[in-house]
Amino acid sequence: MITLTTDFGYSDHYVGAMKGVILSIDPNVRIVDITHGVRRHDIRHAAYVLRSVVDYFPEHTVHLFVVDPGVGTSRNGIVARLERGYFVGPDNGILTLISERVKRVWRINIKPQSATFHGRDVFAPAAARVHSGDFSELEDIGYFEKFDMINPELQDKTLVGEILHIDHFGNVITNIPASMVPSFSQAEVFGVSVPYVETYANVPQGEAALLINSENYLELSINQGSAAKKFGVQVGDKIKIQIKR
Amino acid sequence: MITLTTDFGYSDHYVGAMKGVILSIDPNVRIVDITHGVRRHDIRHAAYVLRSVVDYFPEHTVHLFVVDPGVGTSRNGIVARLERGYFVGPDNGILTLISERVKRVWRINIKPQSATFHGRDVFAPAAARVHSGDFSELEDIGYFEKFDMINPELQDKTLVGEILHIDHFGNVITNIPASMVPSFSQAEVFGVSVPYVETYANVPQGEAALLINSENYLELSINQGSAAKKFGVQVGDKIKIQIKR
Amino acid sequence: MITLTTDFGYSDHYVGAMKGVILSIDPNVRIVDITHGVRRHDIRHAAYVLRSVVDYFPEHTVHLFVVDPGVGTSRNGIVARLERGYFVGPDNGILTLISERVKRVWRINIKPQSATFHGRDVFAPAAARVHSGDFSELEDIGYFEKFDMINPELQDKTLVGEILHIDHFGNVITNIPASMVPSFSQAEVFGVSVPYVETYANVPQGEAALLINSENYLELSINQGSAAKKFGVQVGDKIKIQIKR
Repeated sequence: MITLTTDFGYSDHYVGAMKGVILSIDPNVRIVDITHGVRRHDIRHAAYVLRSVVDYFPEHTVHLFVVDPGVGTSRNGIVARLERGYFVGPDNGILTLISERVKRVWRINIKPQSATFHGRDVFAPAAARVHSGDFSELEDIGYFEKFDMINPELQDKTLVGEILHIDHFGNVITNIPASMVPSFSQAEVFGVSVPYVETYANVPQGEAALLINSENYLELSINQGSAAKKFGVQVGDKIKIQIKR
Repeated sequence: MITLTTDFGYSDHYVGAMKGVILSIDPNVRIVDITHGVRRHDIRHAAYVLRSVVDYFPEHTVHLFVVDPGVGTSRNGIVARLERGYFVGPDNGILTLISERVKRVWRINIKPQSATFHGRDVFAPAAARVHSGDFSELEDIGYFEKFDMINPELQDKTLVGEILHIDHFGNVITNIPASMVPSFSQAEVFGVSVPYVETYANVPQGEAALLINSENYLELSINQGSAAKKFGVQVGDKIKIQIKR
Repeated sequence: MITLTTDFGYSDHYVGAMKGVILSIDPNVRIVDITHGVRRHDIRHAAYVLRSVVDYFPEHTVHLFVVDPGVGTSRNGIVARLERGYFVGPDNGILTLISERVKRVWRINIKPQSATFHGRDVFAPAAARVHSGDFSELEDIGYFEKFDMINPELQDKTLVGEILHIDHFGNVITNIPASMVPSFSQAEVFGVSVPYVETYANVPQGEAALLINSENYLELSINQGSAAKKFGVQVGDKIKIQIKR
C-alpha cells in the first residue's frame, strides 16, 4: 500500500502522472490518496498530516510525500524506515513531528528526467521500488532535516506554543500536546474568555471552545464556525492560553 | 466495496485517517471516494448525494457518510440496511430522501477514542465490519431521523418546492420530481421567463433554462453559467415556477 | 485500468455515480482519478492533461474524459485507440495535442438515460466495455475534432506561442515545445527581463524565471509565487519571448 500526500492541488495532472508511474512499475499496488491540498510549500502542514495518519495504516505502508519547494536544488530525496512503515519524499523537515520514530534514512540516487517534477521522476519510482522490497539506488546516510518551532510549555498557569495547522473547518491546532494540559474549565486566549470542553457541540453555535483534538493536540475552535477567521490567526503564530479556573 | 462521502474537504488528513482505519481492518476492501466536498454541516446536501448514487453501485456496497455537526453529542451513530446496500453514519437526516428504501436500522455501540472524530473512531470501523458481515456492537433500534422540507406540489399552473442543492456548475436543483412536472414550453421563475428544454445547450450560452436533471428533479440552469449566481438563490430557498404555456 | 478526468469538481456526486456505473459492470477494474478540477468546459485544459499522462500509464489503460459543454447535442461520443491505451469521451477536441498518436476512432451509439449526464449514461459504460474488450455499440468513423491554436514559432530571436495552461501554482505553460527553444540566458517577456534556468529555486523567492517544464513545454514561473497573477495572463493569451542573450 502506498499513500500519497502533496501540495499539487486538484486541478492538474501531476498526481495522475505519479500514479501512472507507480502503476507502471507495479500494477497491483494499492494507492491511497491522503490529501493533495497541503498548503503550497508548507512543510509544517505536511509534517502534521504524516504524524496524523502514520499510526492508522497497516505496517509496511509506504507514505509518499511531495511538498517540495526546493525541487531541483541540492536538497536530498530520502527514504526513511519508520517504526511503522516507510516515508519517501524530499528531505526538508516533513519527518520533524515523528522524528523519534525514524529508524533508518537513505538518500535516493535516482537521476530525474526533469528538474521540476521529482514527484514523478524520483519519488514515485522510489516509493514503488521500496514497496516491492527493492532498496537499490539508495544510500544509507542516517540523518534528516528538522524544522524549528516554539517549544510548547506550561509556565505557571499559561500554556505557550505555536499554531501548527488550521484545518478545513477553521479549527486552530496548536503544538501543545494533551499531556501538557492540566485540568481546567475556563481560559483566556487572544483576549477572549473561552471554556475548555470535550467536543465542538458542547458550546452554542458560533461560540469558541478549547478542546483536545483527535490527534491529542490542544485546539481552539468555534462550533460550526471558523476560529482562524474569528481570531485572525495564521499557521506559525505564537499562541498563549492563560488558565483562569 | 465501501464508498466515502464527507464534508471534510480536501486539505486535511481526516479522510486519509479513515481510509487507514478501514484498510487496517480489511486490507482488501475497495474504497471509492464519492465526494468530500459536501457543504460543511449540510445534511441536505449529503442526503442528495446518497439518493443520487445508491442505485448505481453494486448490491452490498456500504455507503459511509460523515457529515456530522453533532459529533460527540448524544445523537446516535447508525447502520441502515437499504433495498440496495448499507448506510453507515450519524443519525441526523441523511436518509431522508431515500427513507422509503430503509429496511432496518441499528445503533452503533462502538466507544470512540476521541470526542471530535467519530468518522475515524466509530464510523470507519463500523463500515469495515458491516462490509465483512460482522454485525456485533450493533443494536436494532428501527427508527431514524428525517429533516423537514417544503412539500413539492403543483397548484393550478404553479409548481412549488424548495432548492435542494446547488451543484459545482451553479445549477439550481429543486425537490420537484419529474413525475409532477406537466408538459410545458415556457414558465416564469423569479420574475424571468425561461424555456423548458432537454439539455443545457438547447439555449444560447449564458441563457437560463428549466430541465429535468439526471436525478429526475426539476432544475434551473444557465448554459455554461451559474444559475445560482444569476438568480441569487441558496439551498433551502422556496422556488415557484409559474407555467405560461 | 480506467483513468478519470472531468470538470465536475469535488463537491458533487457526479464522479461517484460514474464510478458506480463502471464498478457495476466490472467490480474488479481499477479506477484511477487523474483530476476532476479541469476548468469548467475548458477543452484545452483537458487536452493538456491527456497529453501529460498518457505516456506514464500502462498499455491498454482506458482514459475516460468528461469535459463536455455540448452534452445532449449532436456532438459525438467517441472511443479512440491511441498508440498507448484508449481515449473515451466527447468528440470536442480533447485529442488535439496527441492527434498524431490516434490510430482509430469509433462513435459510441449507446442511448443515454438522461440528456444532461452522458458521463454516467454513455461514457462510463463505454469505458467499462472497452476495458473488458467489448467493442459492440461502436461504429468506426475514423475522424475526430481538433481545436485551433496559435502555431508556436521562432522568428529571428523571438519565440511566439500561446498560453496552453495555468497550473495550481500559477505557472504559465506555453505551447512552445522544448525542441524549438534555443540556448539562451535572458529574455524579455511582457516587458520584464527574465532569466532562463533549470528549476524554480534557481532564482530568489518571488522572482520570475523561464524554464522547460516537466512536459517539455516552455514555462514562465515565479519561485514560490504565481506567474499568472504577476503577469495578469490567461489561458489562450498570445505570448512573446524576446531572447536578449
